[in-house]
Amino acid sequence: MSRHLMISSDCHAGLQPGKYREYIDPQHRKAYDDQVAGQIAQFKESAKAFMVSEFADEWERDKEEGLTGAWDSDRRNAALDADGVVGEVVFPDGLTGGNSPPLGAGLTLPTDCDSQLQLAGARAHNRWVADFCSLAPARRAGLAIVPILQDIDAAVTEIEWAAKAGLRGGIMIPSMWRDHPAYHHPRYEPIWAACADLNMPIHTHVAAAPELEPHPGSIGIYITEVVWWSVRPMWFLIWSGVFERHPKLKFLVSEGGVDWAPSLLKMMDQRFTANRTNAKMGDFHKNLSMKPSEYFDQNCWVGSFLTRDEVEARHEIGVGNLMWTSDYPHPEGTWPDSKNLVIEAFRGAPEEETRAMLGGNAAEVFGFDIDALAPLTERVGPEVAAFEGD
Amino acid sequence: MSRHLMISSDCHAGLQPGKYREYIDPQHRKAYDDQVAGQIAQFKESAKAFMVSEFADEWERDKEEGLTGAWDSDRRNAALDADGVVGEVVFPDGLTGGNSPPLGAGLTLPTDCDSQLQLAGARAHNRWVADFCSLAPARRAGLAIVPILQDIDAAVTEIEWAAKAGLRGGIMIPSMWRDHPAYHHPRYEPIWAACADLNMPIHTHVAAAPELEPHPGSIGIYITEVVWWSVRPMWFLIWSGVFERHPKLKFLVSEGGVDWAPSLLKMMDQRFTANRTNAKMGDFHKNLSMKPSEYFDQNCWVGSFLTRDEVEARHEIGVGNLMWTSDYPHPEGTWPDSKNLVIEAFRGAPEEETRAMLGGNAAEVFGFDIDALAPLTERVGPEVAAFEGD
Repeated sequence: MSRHLMISSDCHAGLQPGKYREYIDPQHRKAYDDQVAGQIAQFKESAKAFMVSEFADEWERDKEEGLTGAWDSDRRNAALDADGVVGEVVFPDGLTGGNSPPLGAGLTLPTDCDSQLQLAGARAHNRWVADFCSLAPARRAGLAIVPILQDIDAAVTEIEWAAKAGLRGGIMIPSMWRDHPAYHHPRYEPIWAACADLNMPIHTHVAAAPELEPHPGSIGIYITEVVWWSVRPMWFLIWSGVFERHPKLKFLVSEGGVDWAPSLLKMMDQRFTANRTNAKMGDFHKNLSMKPSEYFDQNCWVGSFLTRDEVEARHEIGVGNLMWTSDYPHPEGTWPDSKNLVIEAFRGAPEEETRAMLGGNAAEVFGFDIDALAPLTERVGPEVAAFEGD
Repeated sequence: MSRHLMISSDCHAGLQPGKYREYIDPQHRKAYDDQVAGQIAQFKESAKAFMVSEFADEWERDKEEGLTGAWDSDRRNAALDADGVVGEVVFPDGLTGGNSPPLGAGLTLPTDCDSQLQLAGARAHNRWVADFCSLAPARRAGLAIVPILQDIDAAVTEIEWAAKAGLRGGIMIPSMWRDHPAYHHPRYEPIWAACADLNMPIHTHVAAAPELEPHPGSIGIYITEVVWWSVRPMWFLIWSGVFERHPKLKFLVSEGGVDWAPSLLKMMDQRFTANRTNAKMGDFHKNLSMKPSEYFDQNCWVGSFLTRDEVEARHEIGVGNLMWTSDYPHPEGTWPDSKNLVIEAFRGAPEEETRAMLGGNAAEVFGFDIDALAPLTERVGPEVAAFEGD
């Protein structure tokens, strides 16, 4: 192939507030109607804090047509084509501050909502995204929102539904469990087992973090620690033996960069290996047959924009464990400059490694058919020759 | 000097349960008496989880005489002499599972205790450790436990008392604030101001972390994330401008290793610098005149055993920001093999850099009189020549 296959393992889509109504179970439509106005007001408030209006206005004015691809299938394909992107995993929350799944479902899960309503909101989005992905099934691996903290049986039912509905992107779980049992609790075992059996990858996506009073520093603090909260579930799964019991289970963290990975993996392996500083802890890892970094290598992936620094760190993390993301249509991502940015970041890396990180790993994990996508790749992908040089 | 000055910036001392009685304010002695039995039972329980009895028995059998240095001044001096250590910062909790300050004060602050009683327990320990340090004032920089979460005025009073009592090690604050306001809250400003004015360094010490239900994996999870909880206050202070307002304030994290530092500092600087991924956040760092890593360099230090790997990473962190610790008399530290271990770790490093990390930095931060300690250094310190080679 003369061009690279680019699959973004983290894009976003969603309907505008109010538009989810037909996807909501009838018994929850009144609650849905009641919350739409509040949802709009809350998003405006949150947009003030996290996307200052000057920036938002300029961003939205420039890119109006591309941004409608958050819910318009044809415009989405056109925007991705122009950006060189052939395949994508479709997360919720199409636009920052704009269109999040209703009733408290969405990237910042868990929110303080009625858990039945939250599940109803998640199911509404899941139904919509399944429809949306069916409009371009070779390109889109949809992902279901599954609030797993409250009702385990209902969560398993939703995972089974999502698998049948073709949402091969897998499921997104809450990064934080708040007052619910933490993820090393055996109560979650049916969730892990269902995802392993149905080949549904499990995702966390950076967004949720403890709420901070808005004193000076709060935003800097939030953006310093937010990644940690989405990576945290990973070491609960590793140490509690979830990947030992389910060697084919896949876990991904998106939009947290990769800088945290080498020191975390090194540290966990040190903790795992008996030495003078942990001998007093006893035989605490008898449930694991491998080192933590080996479970990471076997079961975990990291989705990131992959800057040049991150590409250079690939061997410390694992070429097979990295996936490029554009974050379309979010403003912090690489869209609409993805081709230039990846060429800049990957230039000089061995072609096979570039191929894996740009799309090959995602194709394998999410079951994209590379042959079916080849014609589109040859039309819109970045030319392999452009990656030569230093 | 033909020998290196070794100052451990993190040693521990404390009385056995029951022995703090005379240091407790009379009105709290009944509460103290009531809790001593419970304290002993709780420590035994905790010792089971965190220091398996087989290991503990062997450790304590071998080192009985040295371990009594947790409260016996002469034996402590003898143990430190034999270990090559001339000066020390004296933290609470002399023995793992043994003798912690009473009434819920101690390394795992904040515990769920009556806040008045916790303060009484802290004050009892602070009085004792001031007496204990006065028996060897040139060698010992005592450190006061100050529960700052509840009563700010009382905390400031205790800091002023500690400074007058010669506890030049500074204060230890809770790593976690639980349901209290986080450390970027302006309510804590009198604490930071008092510590800056009185030249009292502020410490967190790795120990507290969220309580986990004891399912398989819980210990691995605890030792993976415990460091993060003690480093966390540092970025609350950096981002909220505490070091901008108090450029001479000193903040230290002990026993968390150093592996977390390079990627954290790099990440915070990236977050600080406007770029495409954070432009939407607005002008959130207008209260800071420097990059986060520059505040770290100016105001923060890291205390660690300093393995060879950690010494090799010294330039990524800052030679001036690292302090060696022995953790005497805890079993996870370098005692009683400190001399051999530091020679192994520092061999081949430039002499001036070794001098700074082994003792020079601590001397400067805590006001140790190097000249007064010179005769002892020349008697017990490791020979500079032993550090030559690769």
